[in-house]
Amino acid sequence: MIVIAERINSSRKTIAQAIENKDAAFIQMEAKAQADAGADYIDVNAGSFVGREIEYLKWLVETVQEAVSTPLCLDSPDHQAIKEAYPLCRVPPMVNSITLEEERLEGLLPLVAEEKLKVVALCQSGDSMAESAAEKIDLAGRLVERTLAAGVPKENLFIDPLVYPVSTNTESAVATMEAIKGIMTQYKGVHTTCGLTNVSYGMPKRKLINRTFLSCAVAFGLDSAIIDPTDDKLFEVLTATELVMGFDDFGMNYINAFKAGRL
Amino acid sequence: MIVIAERINSSRKTIAQAIENKDAAFIQMEAKAQADAGADYIDVNAGSFVGREIEYLKWLVETVQEAVSTPLCLDSPDHQAIKEAYPLCRVPPMVNSITLEEERLEGLLPLVAEEKLKVVALCQSGDSMAESAAEKIDLAGRLVERTLAAGVPKENLFIDPLVYPVSTNTESAVATMEAIKGIMTQYKGVHTTCGLTNVSYGMPKRKLINRTFLSCAVAFGLDSAIIDPTDDKLFEVLTATELVMGFDDFGMNYINAFKAGRL
Repeated sequence: MIVIAERINSSRKTIAQAIENKDAAFIQMEAKAQADAGADYIDVNAGSFVGREIEYLKWLVETVQEAVSTPLCLDSPDHQAIKEAYPLCRVPPMVNSITLEEERLEGLLPLVAEEKLKVVALCQSGDSMAESAAEKIDLAGRLVERTLAAGVPKENLFIDPLVYPVSTNTESAVATMEAIKGIMTQYKGVHTTCGLTNVSYGMPKRKLINRTFLSCAVAFGLDSAIIDPTDDKLFEVLTATELVMGFDDFGMNYINAFKAGRL
Repeated sequence: MIVIAERINSSRKTIAQAIENKDAAFIQMEAKAQADAGADYIDVNAGSFVGREIEYLKWLVETVQEAVSTPLCLDSPDHQAIKEAYPLCRVPPMVNSITLEEERLEGLLPLVAEEKLKVVALCQSGDSMAESAAEKIDLAGRLVERTLAAGVPKENLFIDPLVYPVSTNTESAVATMEAIKGIMTQYKGVHTTCGLTNVSYGMPKRKLINRTFLSCAVAFGLDSAIIDPTDDKLFEVLTATELVMGFDDFGMNYINAFKAGRL
């Protein structure tokens, strides 16, 4: 499971405040906590600061790298922000994200291809939400085609089929899982990833739904996720899921997590 | 999810004591708690009392029925015990279990077929453990063949592929899940069920593994389980799993469980 750690995102109030106050210590504490908890990439997002996003994203990149050596995941809907923050990265970052929207795709594909970066690609075309598994797989196929044509190797592609709230459509979560299975089967070599929070929107006990969705999605083949690795209950479920799915040789990760007091 | 509630089993020390002391109040409290928690069947097992099993099983049947109207699941490897307890049942019980062992199969099939009982059928042939998904599916196919030939309708069959400890073989749990998927696909109409406790044998934090296995197994198609419905964390995960898998129309079960303070 490739973990993209999601906490350093300006949509969270404490993070937005820390960014505005240039509170490097707070951001670095968040980065370290996530690195220690098993993050493979640390997402950095300053998207809520219209007009100042680029400046703040660059500050986040520099600030986080002073604290941890974990690769970053540059997260912005604005390809310009990613392109300007990229040169500051000490190790190759992941890029989050492209979609099938032409501007976003054309804006980032050359960088992603030339620099051989890993990239999150959302199953989103700009005109409508892909709600069914078939629609999601269709968009995934177009993303694979476009990125491959641009010279991005399959294994650098992290397709996020996007999950929508079960509160508005009971089939949303399972459609996303079926899409994960379809993508992993039809486009062998690509990765799938997913943010969890949408799935539980409008429901009580959201984290229970989020982590249960993660567990089931892994059973359907999901091999990366955009999550908070410092969330103890989520970490527990993920570790146990990898054990029962046969991804944890000799159960050593599980046993080590237990010994470390994390289960 | 068809819940077979497992607590009234003489392999549990408190239950064995209650049986020996003919402590009806204790057994009835266990029965009521499980019925209230959502049991579809209440398993009764006195198998640890060699020589007195039949007497004790009959007592359990009568005792539980005085407290709840939930159907029973008569649980014994001894077909004679089940046959003698059966006439005491006020509503048709489930029978737990048959295997491919001839004596057990021949001993119970006539009763199961004539009385149109639901029956748990274990993927076990007597000579060896079926460890791989293919072996489990093969045994399931033979169980389907034998029971159908005897006149048992498919929908009365609850096939338990049996799960073995991940501590001895990391592939055990996922082999069982693949078997569940295979059985549900190849023998449409049959149910699959599973006891959970074996999967975590020899590992720490066993209940975490058990409930995570349940969640993933449901994602693979499991539609019944032999569980303790009064286990709060297991109930939580099961309720959330049914929600994300699209089995909970409008999320009403989930929301009602939340309102009842069970999540």
